[in-house]
Amino acid sequence: MSEKLKIAVVGLGSMGYGIASSILRAGHEVHGFDINDEAVNRFQAEGGSKGDLSEIAPDLDALVVVVLNAAQTESVLFEGEKPVSLMKPGSMVMACATVPPEFARRMEAQCNANDVHYLDAPISGGSMKAANGQLSIMASGKPDAFSAAEAVLDATAETVFRLGDSAGAGSAMKAVNQLLAGVHIATMAEALTFGMTQGVEPDKFLEVISKCAGTSWMLENRAPHIVEGDYTPHSSVNIWPKDLGIVLDIAKSENFDAPISQAAFDQFKAAADMGLGWEDDAAVAKVYAKKSNLKLPGETS
Amino acid sequence: MSEKLKIAVVGLGSMGYGIASSILRAGHEVHGFDINDEAVNRFQAEGGSKGDLSEIAPDLDALVVVVLNAAQTESVLFEGEKPVSLMKPGSMVMACATVPPEFARRMEAQCNANDVHYLDAPISGGSMKAANGQLSIMASGKPDAFSAAEAVLDATAETVFRLGDSAGAGSAMKAVNQLLAGVHIATMAEALTFGMTQGVEPDKFLEVISKCAGTSWMLENRAPHIVEGDYTPHSSVNIWPKDLGIVLDIAKSENFDAPISQAAFDQFKAAADMGLGWEDDAAVAKVYAKKSNLKLPGETS
Repeated sequence: MSEKLKIAVVGLGSMGYGIASSILRAGHEVHGFDINDEAVNRFQAEGGSKGDLSEIAPDLDALVVVVLNAAQTESVLFEGEKPVSLMKPGSMVMACATVPPEFARRMEAQCNANDVHYLDAPISGGSMKAANGQLSIMASGKPDAFSAAEAVLDATAETVFRLGDSAGAGSAMKAVNQLLAGVHIATMAEALTFGMTQGVEPDKFLEVISKCAGTSWMLENRAPHIVEGDYTPHSSVNIWPKDLGIVLDIAKSENFDAPISQAAFDQFKAAADMGLGWEDDAAVAKVYAKKSNLKLPGETS
Repeated sequence: MSEKLKIAVVGLGSMGYGIASSILRAGHEVHGFDINDEAVNRFQAEGGSKGDLSEIAPDLDALVVVVLNAAQTESVLFEGEKPVSLMKPGSMVMACATVPPEFARRMEAQCNANDVHYLDAPISGGSMKAANGQLSIMASGKPDAFSAAEAVLDATAETVFRLGDSAGAGSAMKAVNQLLAGVHIATMAEALTFGMTQGVEPDKFLEVISKCAGTSWMLENRAPHIVEGDYTPHSSVNIWPKDLGIVLDIAKSENFDAPISQAAFDQFKAAADMGLGWEDDAAVAKVYAKKSNLKLPGETS
């Protein structure tokens, strides 16, 4: 590392905490922010800093935003004391939430109007990869934004996809990935429970299908949760009405028909409506199981 | 090889031809049958035999049926001269088409009534693996049926999943696999064209997504066909209204709701209705492209 930078990470959830820790490990001064004090204190105990975002904004080299959605991202950047307006020329904002491409373009324009670089940088890989600084980042932005983000990208990513010279392209690719990932999880659930009606046990399903043409990254990652009856949320059901909702909103605005995405969205929505929103997203299988009176592994009733 | 067997293979399409060739290569006497004389003659030129099925039936050790569906399978086994009724006790039928589990159970009963073993043996892997004797076979049947099929399985399969002691379990697992495989192809098409509305080029889609959580076996196998604009049918669109139709028929009979499978079925049906039935199944992307006026790679109009 050539230079010790001053960096703020806003959002210390499972992804943001890993990102903040990775940047800290790379030798930078990292200030962590979250509405959850416990996460902030834990980060401080592990060598991070805390404080007031608008107070430190003028000294920041980078502000990394790892919140849930577009509304929260905009709120962090431009509400209250408007941190971006306080940041120094040449500093940068890196925005990691899954957001509509059009939103990313608007944020880029607003940051640039304040002489602040903006990197559209949705992330993929899960909390473990975040903790290890091994994320995949679907990034787009002006060349200067990439340059300003170099230290942060180095500390947090295993793979950086450079998808274009302006914001939006990164978020577009992320939406495409979420379409596939969400559908694949719900389809795994549909296939696993369909198989149960034909006497195919979930463990046999996983053993055989993971070696056949019907497999997917998500099937191999999530079907074990069902086989083990463990719905500890690595990634929660609630992610999917949100992310597939973004996909369907974009599709609607383009007059693009996305019937498979819609069908998958409906299953996650049904899961959330059943009160499963904060369980692991593999719990979408419970929607199918309930309708067909199937008993998933680990279920007692 | 311990013993030279006399084996008939009915159906010399892309899968059956490879299976027949693989058994021949293992040193057995193989008689090939197909409604297409050209395939039969080509197989004979490569060392196989031809002839009349009912004439050789009494001498057969095994009859391998690699036709399109349940109706064709039943016709081969029990129509006309009823070949199964002519086969010797202890010989065996190996049925490879994708069929409903209930149909497999009925065929097993009818074969067993003729003292002929029956192996429910749907196949997976594609024409290349068939030609190389490296299929995955989702097999179920009585232990005696597995014993009688040993030489054929050895010659044709890389992986044999032993899924149960009676017919039906193999076909059930195959239906599960086809549900996933079919949905994954259609979802790849939906995601790829959705991405195009956001400026994501198909080659970039393939490059990035195949390394991310949104990937699937089918995406990595089929998306290149779209990127290259090559719809030479390795596996045709027409497979999917058939196989997803089997899935939906089973689902209906179990009162099982399969909305994602239904949405994928609808896309392949639409592709077939557009006259794309004999193109590669990746051509389902053309359904989306047409609706949204997108130009896929290689399209001139």
